[in-house]
Amino acid sequence: MAHIDLDDAVPGLPSLLRFRPETAGPLSALAEALLRGPSPLERGERELIASYVSELNGCRFCAGSHGACAAAQLDGGATLVRQVHADPATAPVGGKLRALLGIAAAVQRGGREVGAEHIGAAREAGATDVEIHDTVLVAAAFCMYNRYVDGLGTSLPDDPAAYAQAAERLVAHGYTSPHPPG
Amino acid sequence: MAHIDLDDAVPGLPSLLRFRPETAGPLSALAEALLRGPSPLERGERELIASYVSELNGCRFCAGSHGACAAAQLDGGATLVRQVHADPATAPVGGKLRALLGIAAAVQRGGREVGAEHIGAAREAGATDVEIHDTVLVAAAFCMYNRYVDGLGTSLPDDPAAYAQAAERLVAHGYTSPHPPG
Repeated sequence: MAHIDLDDAVPGLPSLLRFRPETAGPLSALAEALLRGPSPLERGERELIASYVSELNGCRFCAGSHGACAAAQLDGGATLVRQVHADPATAPVGGKLRALLGIAAAVQRGGREVGAEHIGAAREAGATDVEIHDTVLVAAAFCMYNRYVDGLGTSLPDDPAAYAQAAERLVAHGYTSPHPPG
Repeated sequence: MAHIDLDDAVPGLPSLLRFRPETAGPLSALAEALLRGPSPLERGERELIASYVSELNGCRFCAGSHGACAAAQLDGGATLVRQVHADPATAPVGGKLRALLGIAAAVQRGGREVGAEHIGAAREAGATDVEIHDTVLVAAAFCMYNRYVDGLGTSLPDDPAAYAQAAERLVAHGYTSPHPPG
């Protein structure tokens, strides 16, 4: 049961967006900018970084929903997402994305955990300043969304297929459409 | 030195907002909604929660700038902010705010760290659902801003008096004015 009086029929972030429309707008606009706005990183890559950080934070709702968005937009699909969640070091991703996932994991532990070695590895693999920036910000943002979703004890969907259904809508219409499923 | 090519003359978050205007808008709008928008929590109380979480995350820039905004808007001023940063259990704040700071500290550790005992203590001290919600979201958001600021290695102001000067501007004009100092 949630820690506050949420609509329990609605799982995860969407229940919070309904509870507090005053903050729902900026939170949805931020997700849209980070995950779908202009960036040298593909949308699927950004969703993968988001779901990987959510997995590290133990946030099942966000790992499920953004994992489904990544799966829908990357060649490796759900298998690749599972492999990255399990261990980016052995997952079949390119060297640059692997290094960016290493930066994301450091950010998840804390901002001061990001060291010259993480940045150096990313640069060596060809990452630009903007790619490093966007990786850090997406990873940091999911340290917020994950804490928001779990800190208020939101519910999970009864049927795990709900993640893929929501992802279809998100990939087509984005995070600022009338039914933002987070 | 920052991890990416930022204007080193500009410290902290503002250097990042300049580097990436595409994400600066949503990030500033979110800060404005969380710290200054409609809420049953006073602006100074929200700034205090933000600075306390930043202190726990070891983010000197955010603890300094939001601590200064709290000091400018709360009766106890800078002394109260220092006392809360050192230990909310012994700081001279009311029971409700003390319990909300306890929730914020749990959120800082992780979303799943928030337990029935934290929520129960806040309710017993008179906190409403919206106050609990806003506390969790402000605390979660600073787990993002802190990681963003430190994860990219932004600089600190040379003169600590800069925090109070920026706070004057922020308290008067908010976070979406042309010079958002974070």
